[in-house]
Amino acid sequence: MTTTMKAIQKTQPGPGVKLIDAPIPTPTSHQVLVKVKITSICGTDVHIYNWDKWAANRIRPPMIFGHEFSGEVVEIGSQVEHIAVGDHVSAETHIPCGGCFQCRTGQMHICKDVEILGVDRDGCFAEYVAIPEICCIKNDKSLPWDVASVQEPFGNAVFTVSESAVAGKSVAVFGDGPIGIFAVAIARAYGATKLIACGMQPFRLELIKKYQPDHVIDVTKADPREAIKEITKGEGVDVVLEMSGAERAMHDGFAALKRGGTFTAFGIPSGPVQIEIAEEMIFKGLKLLAINGRRMFETWYEVANLLGSGLVDVRPVITHEFPLAKIDDAMAMLNAKEIKAGKIVLKP
Amino acid sequence: MTTTMKAIQKTQPGPGVKLIDAPIPTPTSHQVLVKVKITSICGTDVHIYNWDKWAANRIRPPMIFGHEFSGEVVEIGSQVEHIAVGDHVSAETHIPCGGCFQCRTGQMHICKDVEILGVDRDGCFAEYVAIPEICCIKNDKSLPWDVASVQEPFGNAVFTVSESAVAGKSVAVFGDGPIGIFAVAIARAYGATKLIACGMQPFRLELIKKYQPDHVIDVTKADPREAIKEITKGEGVDVVLEMSGAERAMHDGFAALKRGGTFTAFGIPSGPVQIEIAEEMIFKGLKLLAINGRRMFETWYEVANLLGSGLVDVRPVITHEFPLAKIDDAMAMLNAKEIKAGKIVLKP
Amino acid sequence: MTTTMKAIQKTQPGPGVKLIDAPIPTPTSHQVLVKVKITSICGTDVHIYNWDKWAANRIRPPMIFGHEFSGEVVEIGSQVEHIAVGDHVSAETHIPCGGCFQCRTGQMHICKDVEILGVDRDGCFAEYVAIPEICCIKNDKSLPWDVASVQEPFGNAVFTVSESAVAGKSVAVFGDGPIGIFAVAIARAYGATKLIACGMQPFRLELIKKYQPDHVIDVTKADPREAIKEITKGEGVDVVLEMSGAERAMHDGFAALKRGGTFTAFGIPSGPVQIEIAEEMIFKGLKLLAINGRRMFETWYEVANLLGSGLVDVRPVITHEFPLAKIDDAMAMLNAKEIKAGKIVLKP
Amino acid sequence: MTTTMKAIQKTQPGPGVKLIDAPIPTPTSHQVLVKVKITSICGTDVHIYNWDKWAANRIRPPMIFGHEFSGEVVEIGSQVEHIAVGDHVSAETHIPCGGCFQCRTGQMHICKDVEILGVDRDGCFAEYVAIPEICCIKNDKSLPWDVASVQEPFGNAVFTVSESAVAGKSVAVFGDGPIGIFAVAIARAYGATKLIACGMQPFRLELIKKYQPDHVIDVTKADPREAIKEITKGEGVDVVLEMSGAERAMHDGFAALKRGGTFTAFGIPSGPVQIEIAEEMIFKGLKLLAINGRRMFETWYEVANLLGSGLVDVRPVITHEFPLAKIDDAMAMLNAKEIKAGKIVLKP
Repeated sequence: MTTTMKAIQKTQPGPGVKLIDAPIPTPTSHQVLVKVKITSICGTDVHIYNWDKWAANRIRPPMIFGHEFSGEVVEIGSQVEHIAVGDHVSAETHIPCGGCFQCRTGQMHICKDVEILGVDRDGCFAEYVAIPEICCIKNDKSLPWDVASVQEPFGNAVFTVSESAVAGKSVAVFGDGPIGIFAVAIARAYGATKLIACGMQPFRLELIKKYQPDHVIDVTKADPREAIKEITKGEGVDVVLEMSGAERAMHDGFAALKRGGTFTAFGIPSGPVQIEIAEEMIFKGLKLLAINGRRMFETWYEVANLLGSGLVDVRPVITHEFPLAKIDDAMAMLNAKEIKAGKIVLKP
Repeated sequence: MTTTMKAIQKTQPGPGVKLIDAPIPTPTSHQVLVKVKITSICGTDVHIYNWDKWAANRIRPPMIFGHEFSGEVVEIGSQVEHIAVGDHVSAETHIPCGGCFQCRTGQMHICKDVEILGVDRDGCFAEYVAIPEICCIKNDKSLPWDVASVQEPFGNAVFTVSESAVAGKSVAVFGDGPIGIFAVAIARAYGATKLIACGMQPFRLELIKKYQPDHVIDVTKADPREAIKEITKGEGVDVVLEMSGAERAMHDGFAALKRGGTFTAFGIPSGPVQIEIAEEMIFKGLKLLAINGRRMFETWYEVANLLGSGLVDVRPVITHEFPLAKIDDAMAMLNAKEIKAGKIVLKP
Repeated sequence: MTTTMKAIQKTQPGPGVKLIDAPIPTPTSHQVLVKVKITSICGTDVHIYNWDKWAANRIRPPMIFGHEFSGEVVEIGSQVEHIAVGDHVSAETHIPCGGCFQCRTGQMHICKDVEILGVDRDGCFAEYVAIPEICCIKNDKSLPWDVASVQEPFGNAVFTVSESAVAGKSVAVFGDGPIGIFAVAIARAYGATKLIACGMQPFRLELIKKYQPDHVIDVTKADPREAIKEITKGEGVDVVLEMSGAERAMHDGFAALKRGGTFTAFGIPSGPVQIEIAEEMIFKGLKLLAINGRRMFETWYEVANLLGSGLVDVRPVITHEFPLAKIDDAMAMLNAKEIKAGKIVLKP
Repeated sequence: MTTTMKAIQKTQPGPGVKLIDAPIPTPTSHQVLVKVKITSICGTDVHIYNWDKWAANRIRPPMIFGHEFSGEVVEIGSQVEHIAVGDHVSAETHIPCGGCFQCRTGQMHICKDVEILGVDRDGCFAEYVAIPEICCIKNDKSLPWDVASVQEPFGNAVFTVSESAVAGKSVAVFGDGPIGIFAVAIARAYGATKLIACGMQPFRLELIKKYQPDHVIDVTKADPREAIKEITKGEGVDVVLEMSGAERAMHDGFAALKRGGTFTAFGIPSGPVQIEIAEEMIFKGLKLLAINGRRMFETWYEVANLLGSGLVDVRPVITHEFPLAKIDDAMAMLNAKEIKAGKIVLKP
């Protein structure tokens, strides 16, 4: 094995990245080394690439970023027990401390001392990545590499929908990013009986239609509150899945929610949101669930079940593939005012 | 309006029924009078018809039996507020007292003083039936009469599946009666990712296949424990839905259940069942849910949502229609050793 | 029986009230007439008395207000089934429509067409009040009238604490109004293992101490975030009960909440609250429960159980009794800058 | 450090034990070595001592048994991260595999490949015991050794009561073994508003009374079904905690349960139990929870919270202390027809 690899590095504070030769990581006793087959771009990666305010506060260059991937295990640490060389794996990107209250009580996804792959430590926009055994997800070998790579964001959507108990219910999904689209697909698979998707990017709204929601609302053209009121005969929806992070979507969601309904918040607003606690929450008697990451590892089993069963096909969302070295082209597509891509995968 | 109607009466203790002329009931202040359009036959009706031990203990002839139906409201009592003449309705057949702890805490379906339509009081195997307003379910007028009639047993299946949280899970359904078949259909619609149906009547197993379970096991030909073990790679299923009432199915279900799984019991065994509490329950760490009736009225909304959305089509299960007066023919089919019917509906 | 009674009326828009002679109400067929023994003052009544912005928008004078009471049934409507003359009763003040989705699914407390006693229709600051049978709560005859009267606000606290699952958990209660104090008492009775009460009124903080929280924080003197951080060794509390409606308390509550914790919102802020969705909710992975009213009627059974068992004694919170005609004096106490009262009851 | 220690060994199949000199265990890389300060006797240990049918099938002598203890860490393995020499610890006795579905989804307590300390591998009836880091529970240093030792069975009771949501509810506990007694104490602390304890050993019923249940029923003298019916005015109890494993108690529990109630099964019957599924379960609409072990590690935090808060004092249940070498005397007490001990602790 050679000792260096190609990798995409945020070399210094500021926009842009550099393609570098980096040493192939050496797995510690509890880690495995993975040859990356496919990696995919998350919204977080766009923030890091663009070097927005959040990135400037959180990221410490130089660092290889990227956290969604699939690959093959090529080396294992001395204490690794459940993963073997040759296994196909993806990774849970929340690396838990293992000792805090959350980690000891089935809540590793909100570990108090969590480190995030490609955010707090070197990630997977590279030919190789080292990850702790505990975060390894063994994939079925029949799972295509690109599908396997997007399991991480798909898992966000699975966690969100799964917590929200949508079967037999009316559901409105706000947000047309890949995770929002996945949420629509999963809500359909999980038996939402009235499914309404709200977004604003024409290309993505077309993608969403492939998952057959009952209604698609382009919020630049129609008021979702009015539309949902009409669709639900004045009742509102049982469940709102807020996947956009847009302040307006939050308010529309609260307004569209039925009394006694569930509001599940996944999208991250860029600033504070002014909430009318009385009207938007209390008198609604709502339950609000805030979702972060994926349940470790219930969500991953559910992801595997869903993909393995064929109930959801994520392929239509994966619209583009670039060589890893062409990451700038991929980022340009995702930074366009009118986005004409779903999920973009990169091949190292 | 004439004052008499045709009705099927259990006239005296013992097998069989009589077609009679009975007075059309007069609704009390809180009742509505329904012209029955279609009524359907439940397993309970077969017990009453055959006059088995349960029926002999419970039923007090003379009585018009039957409890599943759809029809049109032709008269309302003086205090009725939410139902109008001309409404299409079905009925929740558990008539609650309204004053007990259960009724006052959202558990009317297990009312301590419940009366059951067609069991404890005159039912719907007739041209007209009077029911309390509270038990009226207003149907969408586009809902066909036969589909509307089977909502009551369909609701049993909806309640069972809904409580069991099957989305993204592996599920084994035991039982091939209409409610078992419905349960398979609903579990599929609600996102069970691995769905196994177990039964023993060839005709019904063929019906089940229309709802596309992943596996159908004829328990007269294969050991469901072994089959499920193999299908689930030794893990067992996350959820067992016991819809048969067969002792053997209960034991197979416990054996097939994954540690930490949910066992939902709907079928009613004819006698006591010997359970190995330690092996079958405790060491499994299982949760057992006993299901009776339909949640009033959450289940009915869910039924309407499911049927209205088209996610489940109950029509394939409705295999035969007879005139009400030909009930003997219908009963003969359901009493056959090899049953060649799904749900049978009767037209008054 | 005479035909008129003394009553406190909001006669016209604006501050203050008038003691009037009003006709004794005649119960309709589903109502009962209650001779009021004791009535108590809620914060809502203070708003109506003072005629603040909320009251000006909501209340339509002339109207008898007041909604907390206990009394004896003196007359019943023709259709009343479960309540008899001579019964001791209090009332659930949310009068449900009985026909909406919420009412039909065990959520009457958030009925879409709810009417509130003493807000939307004549209330109980009077010698007699007529209430629908469904809202009657039959009290044990051993229950003192004043204790029975405060069951309604006590029920708010019971509902809040009960939904929040505090047993074995660390709990911070924000708010020192009577309902906040009750919440402390109930959380203690329900097994909160670390119980922290936060408030700002010295008189009320003294009342709270009678219920033995582990820590009492006067937020005018200490930073509750720092205090709770120290008390919980940096973990935060498992459960926050927000009973104050103060914006600051909401932010303190979010900050003090453990990752994965439950934030239960009962207090009603007077305006919008700026929430950092990411930091205060999403990364916390919190569950937020918005509480309105009392679960009908689970909460009332629980209230009866708690008071009947002696696990909570509400008497220390009832600090003053006035004749109904002296309501101005009571209101003056509750409008004081430094409030020197807990719950005030009035005797008609 | 010397290299041998005193230990109690089941040397060969058959009743009785031997005091031996055994080598002090050497901790592996993920284990810690604990100097045992106090160990306590579980019912399981009595089965092993007596060599009943279960023991003969499960235990492979020679083996040091015992699994409840507290002690001080004297050595740690090379990979141990969260435990240090000098820590006071107890142990979760279910040693999970770490790789199975259950272990990866927050259900280690029902790990498919669990090994039990003192059952499947050498236990703690010795001066030293080696345990995996993951099973170490760090105790507050102020916790007395004997109290710390009984945390394991106390945890069984905490898990049972905690899952059963007893606050504001009526609760019947069947069983007067130490775990049953603990369950009474915890149900009281967690706000059961009507608490009924059923048992048959006079000495233990006296112990139970120290935890102030509302009613204590000696089932050898009174019919618990009748008694509970009377106490609950015909309603039955909301929650049954079955801690005895007696078939009769199971049937009494089902009969005493309110419709819609929760039946929590912890006790392990010695043989199969004949259950009337229809009457005892289905028509009740019950939820049955089967409890095994302790939730890892939520239960342990809850145990620490309860003991640390002073809400439950376990000391009254610890009635006897013997030197470890005198284990025969302790076993004789526990094998007596009339048991005159609560929990017995042993000092190595």
